[in-house]
Amino acid sequence: MHLDIQFLGLCKSINLRHCAGNPALIDWKKNMTVRFAILGAGRIGQVHARAVASTRAATLVAIADPIEAAAKSVADEYGCDIRSIEEIRQSADIDAVAICTPTDTHADLIEQFARAGKAVFCEKPVDLDIGRVKDCIKVVEQEKATLMLGFQRRFDPDFLALKKAIDDGAIGDVEMITLTSRDPGAPPAEYIKRSGGIFRDMTIHDFDVARWLLGEEVATVQAAASVLTDPAIKALGDYDSINVILTTASGKHCTISNTRRATYGYDQRIEVHGSMGSVSAENHRESRIEIANSDGYTRPPLLNFFMSRYMAAYANEISAFVDAVANGTPTPTTGLDGLRALELADAAVKSVETGQTIKLG
Amino acid sequence: MHLDIQFLGLCKSINLRHCAGNPALIDWKKNMTVRFAILGAGRIGQVHARAVASTRAATLVAIADPIEAAAKSVADEYGCDIRSIEEIRQSADIDAVAICTPTDTHADLIEQFARAGKAVFCEKPVDLDIGRVKDCIKVVEQEKATLMLGFQRRFDPDFLALKKAIDDGAIGDVEMITLTSRDPGAPPAEYIKRSGGIFRDMTIHDFDVARWLLGEEVATVQAAASVLTDPAIKALGDYDSINVILTTASGKHCTISNTRRATYGYDQRIEVHGSMGSVSAENHRESRIEIANSDGYTRPPLLNFFMSRYMAAYANEISAFVDAVANGTPTPTTGLDGLRALELADAAVKSVETGQTIKLG
Amino acid sequence: MHLDIQFLGLCKSINLRHCAGNPALIDWKKNMTVRFAILGAGRIGQVHARAVASTRAATLVAIADPIEAAAKSVADEYGCDIRSIEEIRQSADIDAVAICTPTDTHADLIEQFARAGKAVFCEKPVDLDIGRVKDCIKVVEQEKATLMLGFQRRFDPDFLALKKAIDDGAIGDVEMITLTSRDPGAPPAEYIKRSGGIFRDMTIHDFDVARWLLGEEVATVQAAASVLTDPAIKALGDYDSINVILTTASGKHCTISNTRRATYGYDQRIEVHGSMGSVSAENHRESRIEIANSDGYTRPPLLNFFMSRYMAAYANEISAFVDAVANGTPTPTTGLDGLRALELADAAVKSVETGQTIKLG
Amino acid sequence: MHLDIQFLGLCKSINLRHCAGNPALIDWKKNMTVRFAILGAGRIGQVHARAVASTRAATLVAIADPIEAAAKSVADEYGCDIRSIEEIRQSADIDAVAICTPTDTHADLIEQFARAGKAVFCEKPVDLDIGRVKDCIKVVEQEKATLMLGFQRRFDPDFLALKKAIDDGAIGDVEMITLTSRDPGAPPAEYIKRSGGIFRDMTIHDFDVARWLLGEEVATVQAAASVLTDPAIKALGDYDSINVILTTASGKHCTISNTRRATYGYDQRIEVHGSMGSVSAENHRESRIEIANSDGYTRPPLLNFFMSRYMAAYANEISAFVDAVANGTPTPTTGLDGLRALELADAAVKSVETGQTIKLG
Repeated sequence: MHLDIQFLGLCKSINLRHCAGNPALIDWKKNMTVRFAILGAGRIGQVHARAVASTRAATLVAIADPIEAAAKSVADEYGCDIRSIEEIRQSADIDAVAICTPTDTHADLIEQFARAGKAVFCEKPVDLDIGRVKDCIKVVEQEKATLMLGFQRRFDPDFLALKKAIDDGAIGDVEMITLTSRDPGAPPAEYIKRSGGIFRDMTIHDFDVARWLLGEEVATVQAAASVLTDPAIKALGDYDSINVILTTASGKHCTISNTRRATYGYDQRIEVHGSMGSVSAENHRESRIEIANSDGYTRPPLLNFFMSRYMAAYANEISAFVDAVANGTPTPTTGLDGLRALELADAAVKSVETGQTIKLG
Repeated sequence: MHLDIQFLGLCKSINLRHCAGNPALIDWKKNMTVRFAILGAGRIGQVHARAVASTRAATLVAIADPIEAAAKSVADEYGCDIRSIEEIRQSADIDAVAICTPTDTHADLIEQFARAGKAVFCEKPVDLDIGRVKDCIKVVEQEKATLMLGFQRRFDPDFLALKKAIDDGAIGDVEMITLTSRDPGAPPAEYIKRSGGIFRDMTIHDFDVARWLLGEEVATVQAAASVLTDPAIKALGDYDSINVILTTASGKHCTISNTRRATYGYDQRIEVHGSMGSVSAENHRESRIEIANSDGYTRPPLLNFFMSRYMAAYANEISAFVDAVANGTPTPTTGLDGLRALELADAAVKSVETGQTIKLG
Repeated sequence: MHLDIQFLGLCKSINLRHCAGNPALIDWKKNMTVRFAILGAGRIGQVHARAVASTRAATLVAIADPIEAAAKSVADEYGCDIRSIEEIRQSADIDAVAICTPTDTHADLIEQFARAGKAVFCEKPVDLDIGRVKDCIKVVEQEKATLMLGFQRRFDPDFLALKKAIDDGAIGDVEMITLTSRDPGAPPAEYIKRSGGIFRDMTIHDFDVARWLLGEEVATVQAAASVLTDPAIKALGDYDSINVILTTASGKHCTISNTRRATYGYDQRIEVHGSMGSVSAENHRESRIEIANSDGYTRPPLLNFFMSRYMAAYANEISAFVDAVANGTPTPTTGLDGLRALELADAAVKSVETGQTIKLG
Repeated sequence: MHLDIQFLGLCKSINLRHCAGNPALIDWKKNMTVRFAILGAGRIGQVHARAVASTRAATLVAIADPIEAAAKSVADEYGCDIRSIEEIRQSADIDAVAICTPTDTHADLIEQFARAGKAVFCEKPVDLDIGRVKDCIKVVEQEKATLMLGFQRRFDPDFLALKKAIDDGAIGDVEMITLTSRDPGAPPAEYIKRSGGIFRDMTIHDFDVARWLLGEEVATVQAAASVLTDPAIKALGDYDSINVILTTASGKHCTISNTRRATYGYDQRIEVHGSMGSVSAENHRESRIEIANSDGYTRPPLLNFFMSRYMAAYANEISAFVDAVANGTPTPTTGLDGLRALELADAAVKSVETGQTIKLG
């Protein structure tokens, strides 16, 4: 269970960190622990700080943020240093960084830290521009650096159980996937302006899940997009309601349905239909109670926030990155995954704009 | 409840029919009862014979079928005459016919019986050719005849409850509809050959449901289609796995997912997402039990056959036709509904073939 | 599926009855059809009239009721004669009767009709007095008559599926049964006065289900009873809220929980825990839709009336009686089942009154 | 959400503990943090060590266990001292203890630590002997000491949500409670021998939940008990399958169903029926996936172990104790709750042995 995993991480990380002042243990720790810095102390930076703190084989050494109060809050919370990004790049006691800064800094920071010999975990996307992403991946390859992209859904315990069922052959060959992702409400206008639009900001997670579950690359993209929830989103040149059909070369389908507004909470469902059966993953509710009365039988709405919904996924994700870094094994997601998902987003935009089925590759 | 409705129908129809030999009641009966003939004693003809028999204000007077044994079986079952189609057309004691003959005879029979002054219920489709459908509808209009198309899903008790929830404002404005229709297995090759293909044969029901629930006409169609379950279907020039996105002028979406093979039964789901909430209709299982053991908690598979799944819908459908005929009110579905659904099917085929988003109207 | 069974019955019974005027068929019919009279045209009499009408091998010949309008309504509905009870007893064209008269007439009528050589279906209970029940059963045995008691739950399609799962070994040995039966509201005071109290009127059905599923006789009864919903029930000397523990000689348990008031509908659940697993049967709702909004996910309340909830069970029950009569095989329930259930009810009353665990047998 | 609560606790406790070596913070810490020792490093001791470590306002200072390896394992895990029970009693830097030693030491240790001025959290039961429990509670009262009993179910997030629904009036007045608690398997014979029997060891938790939810004391107890899963349990003089009916003075009922063997996992359900509706809490599964195939729709079995099932409850429980100690407010459970639950267990045993409904008080 994810709770066990999480709690286990908690206990073990406490143990290790607690010993930080014990010289006898330092050498052992050096060999065993991935020493982390978090770049950016915003919302997602705080999530990853927690995840690092709860991972056995990782230590949070430093936090960087231009806003001093934000950095201090994390430093106080987890007992780590405050350092500048430049200082972190040059720190010998840092093995890995988690880039949680604004999107337009990602590619530069990935390159800098790859060149500095640090393992890099970066929130998606690498960049909103495909060319820039390709250049960045090239640098990572040249440096033989480690780069993992933050597609946390792949690490959600329920989605992992669903993937395992597929891999175990429980449904035969995957044929048709249905992804339903609905946000409780739209992000602020400021965010939407710089997000690259709903396909690059929100659907990108579904594109990655689609690739993960289809087991082969997408060949064509068809997309439809509307503004139904708020004209302000139209004024920003974006959409709030989209549907996509992805088709692979062998004819497998994946449909994606997104909206920015679901009154019943953060709706995150996967259903995979195969030649021998089907597997689906349910939503997460606020609690497991049900009230019955003359109006019917009512269960609580869904968890309303992506951070509580995917808390275990974020912890598992960092844990997987740490494992890969510690063992020198490939990371479960790479820069290429970021590139492929962005290509699908670009194709979806193009399909909406041209009314064409867009071919990839 | 649909069971009550059905049972009610049962009792009342028995009463009326039982009185058939009583001359004192015959005049009353004539005024009150819609006297039916069924054309075609195949599977769907038998279903409608049952439905007529269980409807209060209807009497099954005659059955026609070129295969004598088939006609006799229905005649024995429901105590009606065997007559030829031509005899039925000329019968003064027939008010209405249900056309359950092969598709390529539908348009001709509709026209003949419309001209003969009979009310016509016809299984979809009117014809596989749009031009022929339009001509046929024109004849019906000229004759001011009654024509109802057999889209039985609109009469399913659960789908009616879902529609009522929408009409009652329970979910606000309809924004995105998800239709999932999966057949347990493909029909015989002979059927597929003459069916007009999956979009005109199977998806046509979803196109009609989409129009019914969207509340406005579809403006564009995007479709993807594959053969995943059986190469024989490819050899017949058809598909077995399709996904469609319909978009209305105001930007509402409806997605449709069909496959010819679902190991878990006849999968028939509707989910409608609106501005204030969502409403969905569950599948029908073989029974309501659940068995728990060390492998988990298991509920039975779905009903495996469209006739058992939609039995109540078929009964309600005929009952609605009878009401319209008896009261001289418009039928809930018309030839135009058949035409519109076929236009969507044609557009879907064209979208697959051209890789274009197809505009309607 | 129960719907199929029911519909099948419908079609076939219509056929037979329709042929009633055809002399060529009468002999055949005599041999094949159980010719019925219903005694009592009240609510349950009407239910059984419907059930007889929808059963292939049965014909409803006559109805009896002291209230002429009530008898006439059934006679009109199903096209049968109105006769007095005495006339029915002497009718050569009646094979079987369904006794749906007030409880205090049951035992006498059973004896009369048993002596008259008619097969007897009787609504529970035979009588509220154990001694009278025993005498009545003795007469039935002496006459070698057929007597089936109306415990319709044994014929509910879901409960039959649950029983089949047990018989198929799906849960190993039965160990603990949980029966939850909650009525939407209390019956009228007049009914309660003459019902013999909640244990003999309402719990009696659960006692029968318990015996059916336990697979061995009950050895001890412990019961608790309160008035929680309406002081008027206390004034009548009855209870509205009860819990019972039944224990068999081998130590198997069955608990029963009843209340006269459930705001969410007619609550009818069974859960059977066994050595290798568990099987449960869900409730029946008004429809299969679910509405989601900011208040949560809501499914409709339960069917609110025992006749709609158990409609299929009533039809199956009569069908089973007809089969037994037609084939000369034992009926699935007997007078002894009525006696045993009443003994459990009496023991429950005694347990409440004495604060003792009551031993049976 | 409970996950958030838990994670919050994690982060904050790390912060505080991390500062342990910083003299400037020690005074502040003294005032703010409850300094803990755990007596007993067995399974439940480890659970509470984790819970203390994840609670903001608590610090784990010491662990005691006669088995050195067990104590060392906890000390290593959480970075605390190893001390003897006697040393802990005399430690000025210990504010509170959690007694996780064998049952027969509980009462003595409670008294010792109450007299030493420490706040005491003790696993249930205080003692298996009612008289000893009463004496112990008297000492606690005389010393005006803080004593909280470990009934963790009251702190389960779902059960708290259910309790809140009741307190918010969602179901009106509580009338009938159904508690279903089934263990995956029986504990070892050694444990059963000294556990006081199923009612004092297992049902005791349900007795406490019953009192918590009924809102009034129990007036009478009826119990039935059998051995169905393993004759070895009979040889030990215990039962493995029990059902209990509790009745309050005003006539409210609570039934409890326990078995030592449920193949489908650790079954923990509550259903509360009230005058205006009902509220229930579902079980916890291994994951939220469902697999559909020709055998049906299967969800995973339940979590199989009480520690994973109630992990959040254990954390919340210690957090509540810490809050009470830090703020000098009453603890949510007390020695009296332990006494009352034990009285119910004794009454249940007596009911089984005598075949009587047992009155309390």
